[in-house]
Amino acid sequence: MRNFQNDTKALALNTATLGHNLPGYGAGWEAEKLVDACAERGFGGITFWSQELQTRAHAIGNYTRSAGLDVCGLCRTPYLTGSDAGSDDAVLQSIELAAELGADVLTIVTGGTHPGTKGLVDSQNHLAERLQNIAPIAEQHGVKLALEPLNPMFGGNRTCLMTVEDALNICKKVGSENLGIAIDVYHVWWDTRLGETLQNIPPTQIFGYHLCDWLENTTDMLLDRGMMGDGVADLLAIRRMVEMAGYQGYCEVEIFSERHWWREDPNLVLDTIVERYRNYC
Amino acid sequence: MRNFQNDTKALALNTATLGHNLPGYGAGWEAEKLVDACAERGFGGITFWSQELQTRAHAIGNYTRSAGLDVCGLCRTPYLTGSDAGSDDAVLQSIELAAELGADVLTIVTGGTHPGTKGLVDSQNHLAERLQNIAPIAEQHGVKLALEPLNPMFGGNRTCLMTVEDALNICKKVGSENLGIAIDVYHVWWDTRLGETLQNIPPTQIFGYHLCDWLENTTDMLLDRGMMGDGVADLLAIRRMVEMAGYQGYCEVEIFSERHWWREDPNLVLDTIVERYRNYC
Repeated sequence: MRNFQNDTKALALNTATLGHNLPGYGAGWEAEKLVDACAERGFGGITFWSQELQTRAHAIGNYTRSAGLDVCGLCRTPYLTGSDAGSDDAVLQSIELAAELGADVLTIVTGGTHPGTKGLVDSQNHLAERLQNIAPIAEQHGVKLALEPLNPMFGGNRTCLMTVEDALNICKKVGSENLGIAIDVYHVWWDTRLGETLQNIPPTQIFGYHLCDWLENTTDMLLDRGMMGDGVADLLAIRRMVEMAGYQGYCEVEIFSERHWWREDPNLVLDTIVERYRNYC
Repeated sequence: MRNFQNDTKALALNTATLGHNLPGYGAGWEAEKLVDACAERGFGGITFWSQELQTRAHAIGNYTRSAGLDVCGLCRTPYLTGSDAGSDDAVLQSIELAAELGADVLTIVTGGTHPGTKGLVDSQNHLAERLQNIAPIAEQHGVKLALEPLNPMFGGNRTCLMTVEDALNICKKVGSENLGIAIDVYHVWWDTRLGETLQNIPPTQIFGYHLCDWLENTTDMLLDRGMMGDGVADLLAIRRMVEMAGYQGYCEVEIFSERHWWREDPNLVLDTIVERYRNYC
């Protein structure tokens, strides 16, 4: 346990944690109600998902800022590799949406293995090529891009970056200061090389840090994440590594939990986040 | 595709591939029928699972050898770490069973995170301590022990070794020539550092090499493995790395496939394995 109380100003909510406020999960809150609830608890930022914004990106962004919170992120671009890769137009639309919302960072989940290829090398090369075109466009829109490596269980159809090292290698290849990485404890908690990987990286390379926990008995790859403290990830050790690598941004809570937290009252979820953040992160 | 035809003598069957011959999967073959079917097709070896042997380990081992096949392995010891770790007695029993069967190698899936701890460091230390006691006992019984790292999706309750590097580090700590590793493409295909990890290891460190494929759209962590050639793993590249590291043993096919291959006629499964092995591995 940390020997000081974390300031909730460094805490951000990823709206996936409340089941995207979809009907059937939580209370189906409007974005504004969600912003108010986070502001009341002293959160510093919110990350939204594209499908929650509809045509209201500009209004929701302004409302968030007027409540004293940053819009720290938007999830996410279409896939850039794999069978379900999006077009350049679709990627541009996601960048424009992030700009309209006023989000600092647009997250990239890369997509899977490039059609007709095996392994990861060709897919990663293809990814780097696309990013060389996309990164300058995002920069012109004032939006940073964060590559998020995923747990290797998402290989095949969701990611071609399995480790922070994989993601950093792509950043090096692309060579744009507008491209960095997002580190999510769910995806990296198992990586015994993480500390070594994060040594001597540029101090501004990490654009996001995502919190949840890895449950000892995970029942679903995608939708069974745990609340901080309920699992086996060494959250304090990972945060130490991330901060030693220069990260000073938000601790963004992102919990996909179909069987548990998505079914709770959002007020309880937010209160639990604050308590767990103070004591376990 | 390889420019030569693989010799099926280097091919081994892991009986999990036929659903352990359990009633309801395949034809529910007796061990002897399975051995005959492998011998007819020129397989060089078979790996059994403990639960298939009941009290017939000695007889099944002898039958296998009399048919001209090696018993290359037995799966597996109880877990050594985690909430479900087995007792020293249970571990000894699995070693004795392997000796009775005449198996060259007894596989170890380590088990998950040590109770009351976070992350992997404590669990890996605990694992190394137990192995320091177990390895000499196995050696006295003429049974080699192979640590099998698992895909990180099995962290928490099944493994505390996520990469080949993790497993090699434990081997170094334990320092017994009777302890090596098993490399399964399902667990390692995503690891972009695999080639580097396998450079300069002792040439006899790899005790097993397991084949299947990683399906682009994997629907179940445990039971949705693909047949070689049907997925996105770069099987040729991985085999090259493994052989360059000194491995000269069997290519052991181990496919858990509840929705597909376990429901097929075992003869078709075995014929498919031979064809895919010749062309894709």
